[in-house]
Amino acid sequence: MKTSERWAQAQAWVGQSVGTIDTPSLVIHLDAMERNLARMAAFARERGLRLRPHAKLHKSAELSRLQMAHGAVGVCVQKTEEALRLAAQGVSDIFISNEVIAPPKLARLAAAVRERQARFAIAVDSAEGIERLAAALKGAGAHGAAAIDVFVEIDVGQGRCGVPPGHPALALVRLIAEHPVLRWAGLQAYHGGAQHRRSAAERTVAIAASALAVHQTLDTLRQHGFVAPLVTGAGTGSLVNEAASGLWGELQAGSYLFMDADYASNEPDMTAPVFEHALFVKSQVMSRSADHAVCDAGHKSHAIDSGLPLVAHPTGLVFANGGDEHGVLRAAAPGTPLPALGDTVWLIPGHCDPTVNLHDFFVGVRGGLLEGHVERLITIDTRGALT
Amino acid sequence: MKTSERWAQAQAWVGQSVGTIDTPSLVIHLDAMERNLARMAAFARERGLRLRPHAKLHKSAELSRLQMAHGAVGVCVQKTEEALRLAAQGVSDIFISNEVIAPPKLARLAAAVRERQARFAIAVDSAEGIERLAAALKGAGAHGAAAIDVFVEIDVGQGRCGVPPGHPALALVRLIAEHPVLRWAGLQAYHGGAQHRRSAAERTVAIAASALAVHQTLDTLRQHGFVAPLVTGAGTGSLVNEAASGLWGELQAGSYLFMDADYASNEPDMTAPVFEHALFVKSQVMSRSADHAVCDAGHKSHAIDSGLPLVAHPTGLVFANGGDEHGVLRAAAPGTPLPALGDTVWLIPGHCDPTVNLHDFFVGVRGGLLEGHVERLITIDTRGALT
Repeated sequence: MKTSERWAQAQAWVGQSVGTIDTPSLVIHLDAMERNLARMAAFARERGLRLRPHAKLHKSAELSRLQMAHGAVGVCVQKTEEALRLAAQGVSDIFISNEVIAPPKLARLAAAVRERQARFAIAVDSAEGIERLAAALKGAGAHGAAAIDVFVEIDVGQGRCGVPPGHPALALVRLIAEHPVLRWAGLQAYHGGAQHRRSAAERTVAIAASALAVHQTLDTLRQHGFVAPLVTGAGTGSLVNEAASGLWGELQAGSYLFMDADYASNEPDMTAPVFEHALFVKSQVMSRSADHAVCDAGHKSHAIDSGLPLVAHPTGLVFANGGDEHGVLRAAAPGTPLPALGDTVWLIPGHCDPTVNLHDFFVGVRGGLLEGHVERLITIDTRGALT
Repeated sequence: MKTSERWAQAQAWVGQSVGTIDTPSLVIHLDAMERNLARMAAFARERGLRLRPHAKLHKSAELSRLQMAHGAVGVCVQKTEEALRLAAQGVSDIFISNEVIAPPKLARLAAAVRERQARFAIAVDSAEGIERLAAALKGAGAHGAAAIDVFVEIDVGQGRCGVPPGHPALALVRLIAEHPVLRWAGLQAYHGGAQHRRSAAERTVAIAASALAVHQTLDTLRQHGFVAPLVTGAGTGSLVNEAASGLWGELQAGSYLFMDADYASNEPDMTAPVFEHALFVKSQVMSRSADHAVCDAGHKSHAIDSGLPLVAHPTGLVFANGGDEHGVLRAAAPGTPLPALGDTVWLIPGHCDPTVNLHDFFVGVRGGLLEGHVERLITIDTRGALT
C-alpha cells in the first residue's frame, strides 16, 4: 500500500458516514458537483461551443475523464508536469494554456508527444518559445507533421502573458507556419482579471474590450491569409460574454465545477447557469473560550489569496484567520451560539484552485454534508506539479 | 522508485550545478542555514535555555534530526499526523504544541505512545481534552505511569487557544494530576501575534504582558502546591524577550532556520542573533513584454498570506501577484533592466511555513545560489499532514 493510501485510510474511507470523516478534510458534495457538470455541459452544447475545462482547478485525472464523459473535448492545464501526469493517467486531450520556455520541460513534453501519450496543445507568445518547442520536438524524433497544436496567446486585458493583438500575433503565426512539426490551432485569449469584477456590467465591459482585441487580430490574420481555426479562453466569471461574442469557439472555465466564496461574491449574470458550492473543508472545533471557538483548519488547509473561507454550517459564524493551522470563529451577531468542542464546522474556501493544491485527495460525499456517506476518494494527481 | 522520487529526479539531482535546477523549485542555501542553526544553538546554550524548534516550518525528519544534533532537545509540531510521520522517520522527541480533541486522532497518538515510537508531549486547554487523552491512552493499553507529557496552554495575548491565566490553568493541572498515565510537564505560553509586530519595542511590550500572565499563573499554581517543571513558548520574532524574562525555560522558534520576507521586515532586536535568508524559490522568466517579465512562480509555489515574495536576484525588481502560477516582475525604478526570457529569478518567500507545505522536497545547495551545486535533496515528510 502506498503511503498516501495509508494516510487516506485513517482520514476517510468508502462507506463511512460523513460525520466520522477526520478533519480537516477536503470534501466534494458529489450531487452538487454533478449538477454543476450538467449545467455547464448544457450551456456549451446549446450554444454550439466546445468545452475544455481547466484541470488546474481539480488536478485530477478522474475528474478530467468525468468532464470528458460529459461532453468536454479535453482539459487545460498550466504546467508541463500537470500535462504529463494527467496523460500518464489516461487523459487523452490536454492543452497547456500557458507558455513553456525551459528546454528540459519541452524535452519531456516532446517525448510524450512522440509516444502519443495524449493529444497535446500548447500556448506560445514569443519567437523563442516557438523555436525551442520545434527544436525539442525534432530532438525527440517527433518528425510527424503537425505533432502538436499551437495557440498564439494574445493579451486581451490581463496584462500578464500574451503578445499585443494584431501584427505581433501575425508574426508568430507566420513563424509557426515555417515549422511543419507544429500545427497552428488558433488564438488563446483569456482575461483572468475580468473573472472577479463584481458587477455583471463590469465584466461585460472588460470582455467587450477583449473581444475587440480578438476581432482586430482575426482581421489582421485574415488579411494575410491566415484563418484562425479556433479562439479559446473564458472563465467561470465572464463566460456568458465570450459565449455571446461569436468569436470564442471554446470555453476554458474550471471553477464552475466547485464554485468558491470568491466567485459567489460576483453579481450573477442573468443568462449564466446557476452553479452551486460543491467543495468544502470539513473542520472541527478543537478549542473554545467564552467569546470564540477555534477550528482545526488554517491556511495550510485552504488558500486565502482571494479571501477567507465562509462558514457554511453552522450558520451565523464569521471566520477570522488564525494562522497556518487554526481558524477563529465568532458569532456574526450577539446571541448566536458558538459551536462546542468537537463540533463539525463546514467551510467554503475563498479560492478553490490553490485550496485543492494543499490536499492529496478529495473525499466524495453522496447524500449531502450532514447525513451523507463517503462514496469514493478521488486522488489529486497533479498536486504540487509545479514545473 | 517512488513516484515522488521520479518527479524529483527530473527537477533536481545531486551534483548538478544550481543553474540547471528546474523551476519553480524550493531551494535551501545550506551554508546560510547552517550558520542560522549554529547561531540559534549558541544563543540558547549561552542562556541555559532548552531549544525545541518548531518542525511546522520545515516538516522534515532530516532537518529535525539535524537540529537535535545541534543541541535541540526535540521538536514541536502542530498536528497529530505530523507527530506520527516524524516519529516513523526516527525523530525521537516530539511535542504537539496544540490541542487535539478528536478521539480517532488521540487513538492513533496513544498507539504510538504505547509502542514508544518516540517521547511524546501534547498541549491541552480543556477538561474534555484531558479526559479524552487519558481515555485514549487507557484504551490503547498505555497503562504505564506518565506515558505522555502534558502542557497546559494559557492564552498570553494571542487570543486563540489556551485558558485564561491563573485559576483556569490550576483547574486543568489538578485534573491532569488525577490521571497517573499523564505527566504534567508545565505551561505552554506562546504569543503568535507578537512575532510580527514591527518594532522591537512593540514586541517587548507584548511579551512583557505575556510574562505577567505566566508569572501570575506560576504563582497561583505554587500557592496550591504545583511547581511547574517548565514554561515553553517563544518564536523567532520575540525570543530575546522570553529568553530575558527568566520564566521561559524552552524556546520553540522555528523560522530562524530559513527566515522569510515577513520576519526580515521586523526591526531587529539588538541582542538577537542575526539570521540570514536561507530559503528561496528558484523561478524562471517564461514570458516578456515591453514593460514587464512573467516568471513561473505564483502562489501555488509560495504562500502569500504574509505578503508577496521579495526578489533576491536580479536586484531592482518588484514582484506583483500574477495568480496561482505566475509572478509579474517590474522594474523598481525607471531604467532598471528587466530579465530576459529564460533568465533565473530568485525569490524570498513572504512566509516560509506554508510555502514549504506546497513542495515535496527541498533542493539543498552548497556554495551559493549563483555558482553552487546540489548537495542533497531533503524530503518534506509532513507536507499535507493536516489531521
